Amino acid sequence: MRDRVRRIFERLPQDVSAVVLQNGSAQHVDMAFFHATDLVQGGTFERACAMLHRDGHVDLLVPRLEETSARRAPDATVSTYQKAEERKEWLRKALEGHAKVGYNPPELTAQDYLGLREVAGGAELVDVSKPLADVRAVKDKVELERIRTACRIVSEVADMVPGLLRDGMKEFELAAELSYHMQRRGASGPSFDTIVAFGEGSAEPHYHPHDVPLRKGQFVLCDFGAWYQKYASDLTRTWIRGPASKDLRAIYDKVLEAEEAAIAAVRAGVKGGDVHLAAERVIDASPWKGRFIHSVGHSLGLAVHDGPALHPRHDWTLEAGMVVTIEPGIYVPGLGGVRIEDDVLVTKDGCEVLTRARKDDPLA
Amino acid sequence: MRDRVRRIFERLPQDVSAVVLQNGSAQHVDMAFFHATDLVQGGTFERACAMLHRDGHVDLLVPRLEETSARRAPDATVSTYQKAEERKEWLRKALEGHAKVGYNPPELTAQDYLGLREVAGGAELVDVSKPLADVRAVKDKVELERIRTACRIVSEVADMVPGLLRDGMKEFELAAELSYHMQRRGASGPSFDTIVAFGEGSAEPHYHPHDVPLRKGQFVLCDFGAWYQKYASDLTRTWIRGPASKDLRAIYDKVLEAEEAAIAAVRAGVKGGDVHLAAERVIDASPWKGRFIHSVGHSLGLAVHDGPALHPRHDWTLEAGMVVTIEPGIYVPGLGGVRIEDDVLVTKDGCEVLTRARKDDPLA
Repeated sequence: MRDRVRRIFERLPQDVSAVVLQNGSAQHVDMAFFHATDLVQGGTFERACAMLHRDGHVDLLVPRLEETSARRAPDATVSTYQKAEERKEWLRKALEGHAKVGYNPPELTAQDYLGLREVAGGAELVDVSKPLADVRAVKDKVELERIRTACRIVSEVADMVPGLLRDGMKEFELAAELSYHMQRRGASGPSFDTIVAFGEGSAEPHYHPHDVPLRKGQFVLCDFGAWYQKYASDLTRTWIRGPASKDLRAIYDKVLEAEEAAIAAVRAGVKGGDVHLAAERVIDASPWKGRFIHSVGHSLGLAVHDGPALHPRHDWTLEAGMVVTIEPGIYVPGLGGVRIEDDVLVTKDGCEVLTRARKDDPLA
Repeated sequence: MRDRVRRIFERLPQDVSAVVLQNGSAQHVDMAFFHATDLVQGGTFERACAMLHRDGHVDLLVPRLEETSARRAPDATVSTYQKAEERKEWLRKALEGHAKVGYNPPELTAQDYLGLREVAGGAELVDVSKPLADVRAVKDKVELERIRTACRIVSEVADMVPGLLRDGMKEFELAAELSYHMQRRGASGPSFDTIVAFGEGSAEPHYHPHDVPLRKGQFVLCDFGAWYQKYASDLTRTWIRGPASKDLRAIYDKVLEAEEAAIAAVRAGVKGGDVHLAAERVIDASPWKGRFIHSVGHSLGLAVHDGPALHPRHDWTLEAGMVVTIEPGIYVPGLGGVRIEDDVLVTKDGCEVLTRARKDDPLA
């Protein structure tokens, strides 16, 4: 991953001679570590460290248990440790002689930050989270292939949903089917907690599926994604379990119109906030004004929310090679909600929709 | 969760008048937040904050999008925000008038730590990670019920494995079956990336399943767990796809002997390191001396590795009410490995094994 590391340094001040990345325990790992090392198959790399150098070389320190997994990293020197003090000592030596070393505060724990300051000696720690995120946002060929696969998997499974629905089935049962069919297609698992909501629950954007049974005349909202070699897809489809009332159908059609307007607004050079407004305008000109209560999307990659949201609150501009979600929704408490979400690759002139699941006919 | 918060303060210095917990983005959320609020169903709570008070009350700040989910928290006041500056302002006001405020460095991002220092004013930030972890390690009744359910689910699915095996099936296909059957039983998903290893791959403790086909005369190692209302189980079983060579069988029997020795060593008042040594002694007195290359277990709860490992390196003593894994293994590169893992509840006189999957007959 020499190229990826070099691209990081291209965005850094000249006097930053190295970047140090540290993983904490459990879920507190830095996805910039996986981006720089490309260690996407096998190994948890909890408590691992990486020192990135300007020439693209990476020095890795991993718990002894993960030596085999770490040896898969291209262009890296692998050391192992067993005791916390050995890790500290490795960091001290790694930082020696550097005047300025980059670090990544949004994905470093405060504990490791304080430890780093202890061993930094004369080295000044420089926040390089912005350049790290900027490089991560624009996908290279290898990353894009993984995301394409994750998008293909989730789309194929979404198209199965109408055939999987049975009156009386529980939300969690459908969620189980979605994960199963994604994994059978090679996903390592769902990329986040699958949302399946029947009826009223669909009005809650971050709903958690439980034992609600499917009934006729309800929304069926599925928001789910696949991990493929640590890269995520993220898709939402909403169906109407027939018969569809006029109201439900009208909400669906309005969200689809908003989604299409937002997708049409995507292209390199456009502000994320403007993509949001393209969808919001459609909804706010409808009877459901004010019912679109979140941002229209987010960057996608090694994390499901991988970078800022597409919203006027955040000042960022789309670049070719970014992958973002487009996911407007209308939420009516007590009745239900509709969200339609696709993952798109930003291009010079527009975008390529990577998730190809059907959305023309919501009846199921 | 007034009681849980009060128990935290019982372990804190008298002059710490509040504890502040902050979630970062994506996976960087503080499990102490979920412990204190018991918000285990619905909501991601990224970028949420909690202020814990000595009387057990909790002030919550969540993104507007998650207001509905947050209202489920018992004994909490819920505020919402939309802009980062509003969050900062809320924190500034929350800390006002406090001389000492606890914080949790292992699960707080460096970014939020630096932000916290900015708004802390005269308040001194005190590392309370140890008391937070100590309270989390000893489970209350509600937590234990969730863990029991997670353990029941994973055990039932482990007992299905011999019936699921087919010569030529791929590792990832079996992994898909395991997740599916756990979710059908009510798990929200696997509690970590499922390990399924056929043959040689089983020699790598953190192996990642891929398209290796099942052949006769191999080890089949499955290390997996269920999430149930944010609480984890974690179980490993190893089978031998018959016919079993003498060697494979002997390795299996030795690991089982080591696991039973470690389980027999568990009881309140015993050091974690001594439990490790009970297993290590068995293996190091065998032809596979030195082939047990990780610690014998770890605390389990809201995270899969929820607290220190059971190893002489870590000085901690088991208490009644803790839940830990017991998982010795023997790993022979080029041949394969065996690991057998159960989750046990520490009691005054010994322990209760919560994972009841069979392990007496490895032939499958």
